[in-house]
Amino acid sequence: MPGAVETFPNQFPDRGYEIEITCPEFTAVCPKTGQPDFGTIVIAYVPAETCLELKSLKLYLGDFRNRGIFYEHSINTILDDLVASCRPRRMTVVGHFNPRGGITSKITATHEASRP
Amino acid sequence: MPGAVETFPNQFPDRGYEIEITCPEFTAVCPKTGQPDFGTIVIAYVPAETCLELKSLKLYLGDFRNRGIFYEHSINTILDDLVASCRPRRMTVVGHFNPRGGITSKITATHEASRP
Amino acid sequence: MPGAVETFPNQFPDRGYEIEITCPEFTAVCPKTGQPDFGTIVIAYVPAETCLELKSLKLYLGDFRNRGIFYEHSINTILDDLVASCRPRRMTVVGHFNPRGGITSKITATHEASRP
Amino acid sequence: MPGAVETFPNQFPDRGYEIEITCPEFTAVCPKTGQPDFGTIVIAYVPAETCLELKSLKLYLGDFRNRGIFYEHSINTILDDLVASCRPRRMTVVGHFNPRGGITSKITATHEASRP
Amino acid sequence: MPGAVETFPNQFPDRGYEIEITCPEFTAVCPKTGQPDFGTIVIAYVPAETCLELKSLKLYLGDFRNRGIFYEHSINTILDDLVASCRPRRMTVVGHFNPRGGITSKITATHEASRP
Amino acid sequence: MPGAVETFPNQFPDRGYEIEITCPEFTAVCPKTGQPDFGTIVIAYVPAETCLELKSLKLYLGDFRNRGIFYEHSINTILDDLVASCRPRRMTVVGHFNPRGGITSKITATHEASRP
Amino acid sequence: MPGAVETFPNQFPDRGYEIEITCPEFTAVCPKTGQPDFGTIVIAYVPAETCLELKSLKLYLGDFRNRGIFYEHSINTILDDLVASCRPRRMTVVGHFNPRGGITSKITATHEASRP
Amino acid sequence: MPGAVETFPNQFPDRGYEIEITCPEFTAVCPKTGQPDFGTIVIAYVPAETCLELKSLKLYLGDFRNRGIFYEHSINTILDDLVASCRPRRMTVVGHFNPRGGITSKITATHEASRP
Amino acid sequence: MPGAVETFPNQFPDRGYEIEITCPEFTAVCPKTGQPDFGTIVIAYVPAETCLELKSLKLYLGDFRNRGIFYEHSINTILDDLVASCRPRRMTVVGHFNPRGGITSKITATHEASRP
Amino acid sequence: MPGAVETFPNQFPDRGYEIEITCPEFTAVCPKTGQPDFGTIVIAYVPAETCLELKSLKLYLGDFRNRGIFYEHSINTILDDLVASCRPRRMTVVGHFNPRGGITSKITATHEASRP
Repeated sequence: MPGAVETFPNQFPDRGYEIEITCPEFTAVCPKTGQPDFGTIVIAYVPAETCLELKSLKLYLGDFRNRGIFYEHSINTILDDLVASCRPRRMTVVGHFNPRGGITSKITATHEASRP
Repeated sequence: MPGAVETFPNQFPDRGYEIEITCPEFTAVCPKTGQPDFGTIVIAYVPAETCLELKSLKLYLGDFRNRGIFYEHSINTILDDLVASCRPRRMTVVGHFNPRGGITSKITATHEASRP
Repeated sequence: MPGAVETFPNQFPDRGYEIEITCPEFTAVCPKTGQPDFGTIVIAYVPAETCLELKSLKLYLGDFRNRGIFYEHSINTILDDLVASCRPRRMTVVGHFNPRGGITSKITATHEASRP
Repeated sequence: MPGAVETFPNQFPDRGYEIEITCPEFTAVCPKTGQPDFGTIVIAYVPAETCLELKSLKLYLGDFRNRGIFYEHSINTILDDLVASCRPRRMTVVGHFNPRGGITSKITATHEASRP
Repeated sequence: MPGAVETFPNQFPDRGYEIEITCPEFTAVCPKTGQPDFGTIVIAYVPAETCLELKSLKLYLGDFRNRGIFYEHSINTILDDLVASCRPRRMTVVGHFNPRGGITSKITATHEASRP
Repeated sequence: MPGAVETFPNQFPDRGYEIEITCPEFTAVCPKTGQPDFGTIVIAYVPAETCLELKSLKLYLGDFRNRGIFYEHSINTILDDLVASCRPRRMTVVGHFNPRGGITSKITATHEASRP
Repeated sequence: MPGAVETFPNQFPDRGYEIEITCPEFTAVCPKTGQPDFGTIVIAYVPAETCLELKSLKLYLGDFRNRGIFYEHSINTILDDLVASCRPRRMTVVGHFNPRGGITSKITATHEASRP
Repeated sequence: MPGAVETFPNQFPDRGYEIEITCPEFTAVCPKTGQPDFGTIVIAYVPAETCLELKSLKLYLGDFRNRGIFYEHSINTILDDLVASCRPRRMTVVGHFNPRGGITSKITATHEASRP
Repeated sequence: MPGAVETFPNQFPDRGYEIEITCPEFTAVCPKTGQPDFGTIVIAYVPAETCLELKSLKLYLGDFRNRGIFYEHSINTILDDLVASCRPRRMTVVGHFNPRGGITSKITATHEASRP
Repeated sequence: MPGAVETFPNQFPDRGYEIEITCPEFTAVCPKTGQPDFGTIVIAYVPAETCLELKSLKLYLGDFRNRGIFYEHSINTILDDLVASCRPRRMTVVGHFNPRGGITSKITATHEASRP
């Protein structure tokens, strides 16, 4: 979803610097049990032409609050939506999910821009 | 054991993302002393066509509860069973075992899928 | 259950010293779900005529491994059994149980010997 | 609200033992900004005739998820509802709320049963 | 200064509950060296008729940013201003200041309402 | 800005050693909200002919105190100014910024001297 | 054993100050299994006329290295010997012993000088 | 030594607030071995008419750098000198000394002003 | 010393898995001062045909208890003896020794099996 | 300075093992302000023919106590002196210095023996 999160122009497009954003207040709903899941999302990317606007990113992540979605699905969806929004040189999204039944999960997905 | 743990289709088979699962409540029985052992199992894998279903995985690990088995044997058996169940691109299983006689053990085993 | 745990004579019965024992490897079975519970048991007591023998205590706690019992019941039962075994001046039993459904429980029960 | 949370009979009503429950996954909505708040709720109580049933308590706390309520209001409401449900000898509810604008809040409220 | 910080009515004036607020982003200027000082302010109080409004409190603390003031003076001034604003039953203000010349300072001041 | 920070001659120019400087007391103003931002700046560099003078560096960083500037802009500006001041072989500047709206940011920018 | 540890005159006998000594390198032998035990000994006391000399104390504790002795016995013996050596106003000896069979023990014994 | 450390007037003499100062960079010389000792000094006091000036306190503590003095002696001397300098209502000085021969020492001494 | 530690057959000789063993209760005697040294030994190896038996390893390490040996000598001797006992593909032995005179030492030695 | 620190013959010269020494009690004097600096020195090296003798190393580091020297100068001087003393295959010296004016410094310098 290209316009999922707003962006602003990167003022230093020639330097390959990294931005890492940590959101410890992610929550969604388990589609199987209907019970809420909780976790921390970490987004690290090297911007190309645009950067993610933080307030818009916060609202985007908040939209998962009442959506039924599995762990793997949510992390891969966030990666796809953010890549479509800001077209970074490289982006990694990690989800650290709270224990359920004594088991903790961490999902890590990465996108590399194809070289022109 | 191929069907040891149930799986579900990986919705993002083209992206090499990683899933890490931590189970701090692993327990088995020492075949020599008959006393219980305790440890934490960490499973990290890159799924191919299928992902491990967490509830089924929990029940599978719970089946070691009253089984007599050595540390090295349990970690290599878990790796073999999970690889047979979900055929991942790559999987590592680590067991951190509680001290016995003042000595702590950690076992790490890795499977790499052979390239076609 | 008076003989639940073996004891040995306290060699310093005139001094009110305290013994604290921590068992991070307690496990029982939830009578409702049939799934294992895990926790840490801390026992602190001032011995009177006898002290708890550690190996026997370990075996006693290990007997909960396949028993279906609720948190509150197990802690109060342990307190009753240990008081009956060693007749301490004072004893406190605390159970720290691992999270279930995102919720962690701690139960604390205390016995004071009645003054003669 | 007397029936807000289900209870079960306390099997050890004569002993003044304490139950402490920690719920690190509390979330509600700020009535002013419409943005979600996050925090950890700690409930410590000495049961009288009944104990709080954990699954029912979890569902009760989950009902705040989409309710607009201030910090002070939510902690005092939880205390009132739980006291009405299980009529404990004593209960304390603490809410540790995540930082907003760089400021972290903790609210602590206590109920003591009046002596007959 | 009575109106230094805005307040709102306490909805639970009969219950003596406590509110603790932590502000790790306090900064002022050393009147001697002209260099900035940094610290964390912790405010704990039992409200009477009114509670401190958090946004207004944040702006009030932010006003110290370019003011020249010593540690002891700032903590006692904050206590006086907040007591004048919300007339609590009891309030404690603590300032933890970052090391200067290898020396760390902590200042703790308390106000108790006089009984009528 | 070449003369932003004073320098002194590197007495060991032939050895490629590293200097890492951590400043946990960085503060600037958000140009959008007018509210202060806080963070920690870490500067790691391999000096060539000159080293950064610490007192001058401290005053330079202190000049951001009342300047309106975004995270990305401040880190890249600090890197540009320090590189212009001491012409290092290599320099990395990292900014760890305190949470705003529950979201924490970290910006990392690196300069490599071009080989002659 | 009065002369177990050497002492030196307390230069501030009128002030009731406390000395706390931590020895994390205590080891003795279990009389049952013949295997070594390890632990940390903490000694806190208010000196009267004399203080414990540290080098002599170290040698005294080192003498347990090859002695077969139970936990309770060693802590009460250390307390008796040190009280006999320096006649303090008050002394507490705590032993934190490493886990054996998953069980950790802490023994705490206190001596109060009888008032003349 | 009354003038050991400079003071400044306490602007809030009617309020019994506490000042705690931590100096992790204390060093002196062992009079027996001639080797340096290192430790952290914590000074907590309730000022009466005057407060300790921090720069003067730092120089005072720095004067121990090349002085041969035992642990107990240094802590009691610091307490005597600081009490003589600022005549507090109450003062506690604690010294945490680094391990020597595997043994760590902590000395705590307190002064209470006599009531007029 | 080939038979220093007993071994058992490796059931998974084709998979290059790693076993890491941590022994925090190592003690020997300094040959210069006659005083005991304490440390933690970490052994990590990839087994070939045999694995180290833990009880035998514990007894082997316990034999250093009253032996006079320097740090470097003990770590290299342990490595030589364990390599001779189990002929691993690769083994690393690390010794973390407690501070003496304020100085902490860590020794790391590695053996790689020569390829046939 | 070749003889700055005494050495002893390396008994295992054919194996490239590493020795890491941590000295948390380093202190020197700032040549500009005359005030003491404090820090931790970490020395890691692979010995060739000789090893550093620890007591001599301690005395060598203690000689900086009253010497006026800047951070960069002290770390590079220590590296030069130790390399001249024991001619290692490789050596790294790191200095972690305590904060001054809110700024912490870490200096890392490495020497590699030139291949014959």
